[in-house]
Parts: sequence; C-alpha cells; structure tokens
Amino acid sequence: MFCFGVDIGGTTIKLGLFDLQGDVLDKWEIPTRKEDGGKNILPDAARAVLSKMNERSLSKEDVAGIGVGVPGPVKEDGTVETAVNLGWDFMDVQGTMQKETGLPVKVSNDANVAALGEAWVGGAKGCKDVILATLGTGVGGGLITNGKIITGAHGAGGEIGHMHLIDDFPRACNCGNYGCLEQVASATGITYLAEQALAESQEASVLRDRKVSAKAVFDAVKENDALAIEIAERFGKYLGKALAMIAAVTDPEVIVIGGGVSKAGTVLLDFVEKNFQIYAFTSCRKATFALAELGNDAGIFGAAKMALDAYASR
Amino acid sequence: MFCFGVDIGGTTIKLGLFDLQGDVLDKWEIPTRKEDGGKNILPDAARAVLSKMNERSLSKEDVAGIGVGVPGPVKEDGTVETAVNLGWDFMDVQGTMQKETGLPVKVSNDANVAALGEAWVGGAKGCKDVILATLGTGVGGGLITNGKIITGAHGAGGEIGHMHLIDDFPRACNCGNYGCLEQVASATGITYLAEQALAESQEASVLRDRKVSAKAVFDAVKENDALAIEIAERFGKYLGKALAMIAAVTDPEVIVIGGGVSKAGTVLLDFVEKNFQIYAFTSCRKATFALAELGNDAGIFGAAKMALDAYASR
Repeated sequence: MFCFGVDIGGTTIKLGLFDLQGDVLDKWEIPTRKEDGGKNILPDAARAVLSKMNERSLSKEDVAGIGVGVPGPVKEDGTVETAVNLGWDFMDVQGTMQKETGLPVKVSNDANVAALGEAWVGGAKGCKDVILATLGTGVGGGLITNGKIITGAHGAGGEIGHMHLIDDFPRACNCGNYGCLEQVASATGITYLAEQALAESQEASVLRDRKVSAKAVFDAVKENDALAIEIAERFGKYLGKALAMIAAVTDPEVIVIGGGVSKAGTVLLDFVEKNFQIYAFTSCRKATFALAELGNDAGIFGAAKMALDAYASR
Repeated sequence: MFCFGVDIGGTTIKLGLFDLQGDVLDKWEIPTRKEDGGKNILPDAARAVLSKMNERSLSKEDVAGIGVGVPGPVKEDGTVETAVNLGWDFMDVQGTMQKETGLPVKVSNDANVAALGEAWVGGAKGCKDVILATLGTGVGGGLITNGKIITGAHGAGGEIGHMHLIDDFPRACNCGNYGCLEQVASATGITYLAEQALAESQEASVLRDRKVSAKAVFDAVKENDALAIEIAERFGKYLGKALAMIAAVTDPEVIVIGGGVSKAGTVLLDFVEKNFQIYAFTSCRKATFALAELGNDAGIFGAAKMALDAYASR
C-alpha cells in the first residue's frame, strides 16, 4: 500500500510517493500555474499523481489516498475560502482532487501539515502532542493534539504568528494588528529587534559592520558578541513566553522549531527553552525542544500521513 | 441505549443517567470519601452506577459506557498522577472503574469534561470547536477541537488559567508563577483589580461602601458606577486578550464563559468580547461569545458525552 503527499506552494507543487512506514519512494516538483485564478493547479497535481501511478504500475487499490497541503486556511471539509498565493477564491480542494483522481483526498493548511510531518518522522518523531513553530519571513504554526491537526472552525488553527504578544507595539503587522508574535520572532522580526538594539545603545558589536539579519545575529552570538546575545535574549523571551502560553492550552510533548531562522541550530533553541521554562505552567515544563528535521519536505510527509490516517479511520 | 456521567469533586460525586440525545433521566449525588488516600471514591461511584442500573432494570448491554470527570490532570489512558483534592496519588481511574463495573470507561479532567458538556447541549450546543473559560475562585479551561477534548501530553491541556499574561506582576499565583490569567480574571483576581483601582484613585464609587468582590463590581457596573466600569474594563482587556491568543491557536466557533463570576450575565461578556475583537487575528474574529448554560451539571453532561463518543468510535 502507498500514498501521495502533495504540497502546493506559490511557485512549485511538491509531490511525494510514500510507503506506510514514512519512507519516501519518489519525490518531484512541478510548477504552480497561478494564471486564470489558479484553475490549472489541482488538475496539474492530479495529472502528476496519475502519471506516477502509471509509471509505477500502481492501481487505485494500491493507493490509500492523497494528502494535500495548501497555503491558506482550510476547513475540515477540505474547502478553501481564499488562497491569495495561488490566485484562488473559493475552492473545493478535496472534491476537485477526488474527482480528478478517483482517489480519497484529505486537505489541510500547509503549516499544519508540516507539523504532522515532523510528528510522523521528523523532529518530534512518534509524538502525538506537538507544536511546530516555523520561523521564516513570518511565523507559521502547526498544532498536533492526540495525533490530529487542530484545524479550527474557520481553518485558522495554529496561526500562532498572529497571537497578540506586545501592547503598544509601534508598527502594524501584515495582518493589520499591532504586536503579533511574528513581528519579533520571524527573520524580519529579529532584524527589527537588532535594529532597535543597535540604535538604543553605543555598544561595540560586530553587527555594526554587517548587513543586519536573523542569520547575522546568530552568527554574532556564536562569536560571543555581547549585543547580539542581548538581541537573541529578547527574541528568546518573546518566543519562549508565547510558546509557554500555547503550552498552557495544548500541553505538548515536544516543541519543534523550524523555518529558515532555525538553521542557526541549537544555540537558538537554548534562548527559547530557557525562557519557556520561566513562563510555563508546572505540568507543561516537561515539554522538550527539537529542531525541525524535514526542511522543505515536511509538507509532503505530513500530507502523506494525513492521507494514511484518513485511510486507517475508514 | 443509555450512558452514565460521573463528576468527581472534592465534596460530592455527581452522577447522571442520560439517553443518547443528551436528556438527563436521573441525577443524584453521593459524598466524596477522601479518607485513606481516597481509596473508596471509585468503588463508591461504581456501586452507585450499578445500583441505579439495578433500580432501573438496565443490563450491561443497555449501557454504552461511563464517562468520568476528575479534578486534576488526566492522561489519555485514563490515569491520574495526582489529584490533591481527592487525596489521590497515582490512580488508574479508567482501569479501576472498568473492573468495578464491567462497563467501558473514559476519563478526563473535570474542566475539559465541562467544556464537552457545554458543546453538547449547553452554551455552545452542537459546536465542534469551543473554548470554555470557567471563572470561579480560579480560572479553569476546557478546549474542544473538532468535537474532541484537548488532553495534552501530561493531561494539562486547557489549563488556560495559568497562561502567563502580565510581566512583573507583584504577587505569586497558587501555581508559583507570576502574572497568570487566573490572577486577574477569577473572582479573586477581579477583587484584586478592584482593590488596586480603589487604592489608586480618590474617585467616588459605591464600591467604597461595600465588601469588594467580583459580584459587587458587576452589580456596581449595572448601577453605572464609573470606577466599577473601569475595573470591568481592565478585567475585560486581560481576559479578552488571553482568549484572542488562545483563538489564534485553536480557532474556536464559540467561546463560552462559565463559573460563578459569569452569573453577572451578558454585561460581563460585553467587556470581554469588545477586547477580544481588538486583539484577535482576522479569521478568528468570527467567534461568538455565550454564557455557560449547564452550571454545576456541565461535568456530568460532558462525561456522559465522552462515554457516548468512545462507544461510537468502537
């Protein structure tokens, strides 16, 4: 028995063919054709799956199903109200993909699906209660509770980047609010914290001679630069506190940190975990921290797992 | 087909016999015998169930199962590490009750179970994504996502009273941390906010002539007392903000406010909802607010529903 994981992004559609143990047997990409309201995206993905089945001589009976990750809020029934990065208004992703392939389909938000992938075979392998925080240009999140994705009533479960964290924050977030987690814990947010710290003090720092970025900050931390360490402390306090709040809600076993910023490695985890321990409720302090392991493939892994879980519960 | 809901409290054990539609056919209480490490509690509850079955001539085939709510963290397997209010150290609640009754048993934390009750036939009737915030001496919480309780890895799911909310808070919470939601949103917390406001200003207020309590504050709000309204604003800002953060995690359809403080009625909801709307992520602003409807019976209702859900998934 096999299954497919499909991760639809704004530029490419990633696809993977998996066995039931989570081994990827084949992995490839096709371009995302966003023109004409993105009407070709799902037929293209369906065709890619069917042609792979043909190539490998797989019948429909050999395939448990297809999981699909989409960049936008997805409701429990597999519909999307809007996905700006794909040019979609309303789209019945589950219904369309099922019709185009004749296979069972399960759909969720891409960040949520990535969390399920990390919980299946990645940084939180085998765990049923997981937070994934993805620190990239923004902050994405995926929440797994008792092995299942938290989808929410409007498909906005796991939108932890837009938790309100700081009162009287001077800049607006992309979402329109002020003081979201994303504004201080994403790559952009860490750059902002660094610019603030550099402007506030006259302290010498290697950062004064470099282009300021999240990577530059953590590189400087590794060189023991005092101001960079102070910036990382502020970042760690914000993210650690936010994760402690989320832990009081979902009580995770493992908290996984992924996204481009997490390439800084375990030094980043140290700043976050130290502050998490300060703010977390007693029973939640047992949660451990891990780096994401699946990188850009987390989406296809999680999508495949979602298809397998749906198959197992039928 | 019938089922039993059992809500074990520090003073009494509440029991209910339900049909599949959520109608309660019988409801009674027995004392909680906490002596000897609480070793009689589960046998007492089991005997109460069996004698009710005998009284009503119900056979084991007529009963879908027993749901049990316990005041303390309960793991997914129905075990409790400790429940101080019952005198328990480790207790296998599910195993013991199954052995004593010969019926299938499902166990969860009492606040989580109450949330399931409100989602079944109470303030969030028929909803699958619900937050219940119970404002009593402390702040309890229960989270329902896609119809299921969020239990968490250590049984601490839904412990929203111990979300860190306020930095540099001058008093310690019962949990040992500083600045938990419970310290400003429980009955005790509102009293604290009132004492602070009365001490800070010289403003006239009917509260100056009364014993300060959460009830006194909301009574004074209804009399249009300006200082009381200011206190309710502060409370509403704290709780509204916290619920907005939780909503970014679980994206609820309905947020139910229960507990003794909620007897103030819709005036209380207004202060909370206004602030929720300010801090919530766009997609989560569609959540509506409701008062809890089941009062002290929420536990037996939710416990019964939990037993029915377990039966349906077998």
